Amino acid sequence: DRTFHILLLPGDGVGPEVTAEARALLEAVGPAVGARFVFNEGLIGGAAIDAYGTPLRDEEIDAALASDAVFLGAVGGPAWDNLRGEARPESGLLRLRKALGLFANLRPVRVFDALVDASPLKPQIARGADLLVVRELTGGLYFGRPSERRTDEAGRRAIDTLPYTDHEIERIVDLAFRLARQRRRKVTSIDKANVLATSQLWREVATEVGERYPDVTLEHMLVDAGSMRLIARPRDFDVLVTENLFGDILSDEAGVLAGSLGMLPSASLHGEPPTRPGTVAPMFGLYEPVHGSAPDIAGQGLANPLGAILSVSMMLRFSFGLADAADAIEAAVEDALAAGYRTRDIGGTATTAELGAQVRERA
Amino acid sequence: DRTFHILLLPGDGVGPEVTAEARALLEAVGPAVGARFVFNEGLIGGAAIDAYGTPLRDEEIDAALASDAVFLGAVGGPAWDNLRGEARPESGLLRLRKALGLFANLRPVRVFDALVDASPLKPQIARGADLLVVRELTGGLYFGRPSERRTDEAGRRAIDTLPYTDHEIERIVDLAFRLARQRRRKVTSIDKANVLATSQLWREVATEVGERYPDVTLEHMLVDAGSMRLIARPRDFDVLVTENLFGDILSDEAGVLAGSLGMLPSASLHGEPPTRPGTVAPMFGLYEPVHGSAPDIAGQGLANPLGAILSVSMMLRFSFGLADAADAIEAAVEDALAAGYRTRDIGGTATTAELGAQVRERA
Ligand SMILES: CC(C)[C@H](C(=O)O)[C@@H](O)C(=O)O
Ligand SMILES: CC(C)[C@H](C(=O)O)[C@@H](O)C(=O)O
Repeated sequence: DRTFHILLLPGDGVGPEVTAEARALLEAVGPAVGARFVFNEGLIGGAAIDAYGTPLRDEEIDAALASDAVFLGAVGGPAWDNLRGEARPESGLLRLRKALGLFANLRPVRVFDALVDASPLKPQIARGADLLVVRELTGGLYFGRPSERRTDEAGRRAIDTLPYTDHEIERIVDLAFRLARQRRRKVTSIDKANVLATSQLWREVATEVGERYPDVTLEHMLVDAGSMRLIARPRDFDVLVTENLFGDILSDEAGVLAGSLGMLPSASLHGEPPTRPGTVAPMFGLYEPVHGSAPDIAGQGLANPLGAILSVSMMLRFSFGLADAADAIEAAVEDALAAGYRTRDIGGTATTAELGAQVRERA
Repeated sequence: DRTFHILLLPGDGVGPEVTAEARALLEAVGPAVGARFVFNEGLIGGAAIDAYGTPLRDEEIDAALASDAVFLGAVGGPAWDNLRGEARPESGLLRLRKALGLFANLRPVRVFDALVDASPLKPQIARGADLLVVRELTGGLYFGRPSERRTDEAGRRAIDTLPYTDHEIERIVDLAFRLARQRRRKVTSIDKANVLATSQLWREVATEVGERYPDVTLEHMLVDAGSMRLIARPRDFDVLVTENLFGDILSDEAGVLAGSLGMLPSASLHGEPPTRPGTVAPMFGLYEPVHGSAPDIAGQGLANPLGAILSVSMMLRFSFGLADAADAIEAAVEDALAAGYRTRDIGGTATTAELGAQVRERA
């Protein structure tokens, strides 16, 4: 058996509940796929603030670097809302992204047939939507310096900085093209090239990368048009690729299509360009459900575990090279939904543990 | 009769067609409201590039400053797509916004009962949605310097700058509160305060302004959450206020609710703080439909004139102090829609001129 070491950071709120279901699923499928999953637990976010006075210790970064993948629950909550800057729970997550070089955030959004009614969109618009947002995660306004405020006689002022290099753009767009080859072979690159210098560079580099993939269609779209199109015609999209902050906004917007954030997984990847051009080699990654810590329902067994479960399915696919096992988990999720098992967010009464068990039985 | 001088900049594509209908409407309602509207025409965008080699001449800026309001159609089109930077049609619009100090962009989005079926959202979610996006229009990433690219041994890099002062934030948020007093008394301030220094300042100043309006509810929301909420629960919003680029994205996203961009008006305002605190005094403004130049349907009589017509209604309300006349136009639009008159974008067969005439008859 191959052994995979996973650093588990359950985090805050519903994080521990949903990651427990996904962990149980991995442990259940291990033997059948010839894999052993060894979990090492650490703290992040509010839980780490309470225990150690900081949202992320160097120890957890070292443990992440020594593992094959990181699995995270959620961070934050009202208990830490009065903290500022580096002291906030979220800053632990931002620091981890940067320390691990997780430049690529993948957020697939699928409208499952069984859940078309949970979408706020008309069924004829939502049905069959299946897209992947590829967001640049370690550049742009999130990490550009200066990012500071100042007060002088004239008053208070603040400034943030949006920098991008051709290298940063090239590697994320290239990954988007490689992923599109495994899907419907269309990449939509989103920018604001009619206003921003960084977006003009983005469009130029995206066009160059596109020339290496003649079998994939590249289209450019302005971010304002993209935010409309996601709602008006979501099926137009296959792979979207965009910079950090546009990706933050558009991936959450796209998430609404699925009816509940609770359904959505994510992967944040780091890796060298793969040796075989145009393929996606196993990459180091951090996996987490898209939903937040949902403190209002924490500890009540109401949270949807599917976002966490589909996140470990992405882990199998992108970090461990176990695509068949990943497919099996996705099929099990679809079966459990088709059989009518739902947590409250998608209109049902199943508990977190019940829905988790239903998926496990089918995987 | 009072005389109002309007600089008309029809622009490109469908701009001339839709502004013609709105102009005819103003001329028709003038006598009844004791007003005379005098139009002076100028060029902007591609039309100005073709005639003068620049998307906006100083002459048009001077004419705008000498008028009581500016009425614009749309700018841009494929004929000018290969132009870059200051030479682009859009840069004429950006230059005009800055030269006229139009710091406040107002974009109301209403889902008319007669058009619920044109919305991509389920009727039970879209029905009754009625919100106003108030976007800061002369600051932030659109005008921050440096905004440039550079090439050295390490490669190509680009940078944009996002600056805000307390004064810029204060005046736009204050306007949002004054507008909320004329509506349902709720302001949602949108930022990314968990990441950006400018957003932290934004939130601080918005909170201070809110203290001056104890009768209006203020809520803060992160931009990623806002982009979800607009689709999942659009009726939660009354007035949204946000910075320039977030406003660009969210106002277009919100526009989708209405079923067609062709329905949507906008106002871009400049003015001193009004003498009576908490009221909205007449302000100088530029009015334009939200839709673009739509070159694919230009000259065919297919464009929806309601965005332009509702824009002149905003002109009457915000620049000329003729709120009753504005109400009458909005009622006429609603009547025409209820009577079944629609252009193609909202599922009908009426021409631009026919729908314009139907509104005129009812105003
Ligand atoms: C918590 C926050 C800093 C984070 C982000 O903006 O990246 C979150 O919204 C996300 O998308 O993972
Ligand atoms: C044309 C473009 C520069 C403009 C903007 O981004 O402000 C447009 O999208 C708008 O919203 O008026």
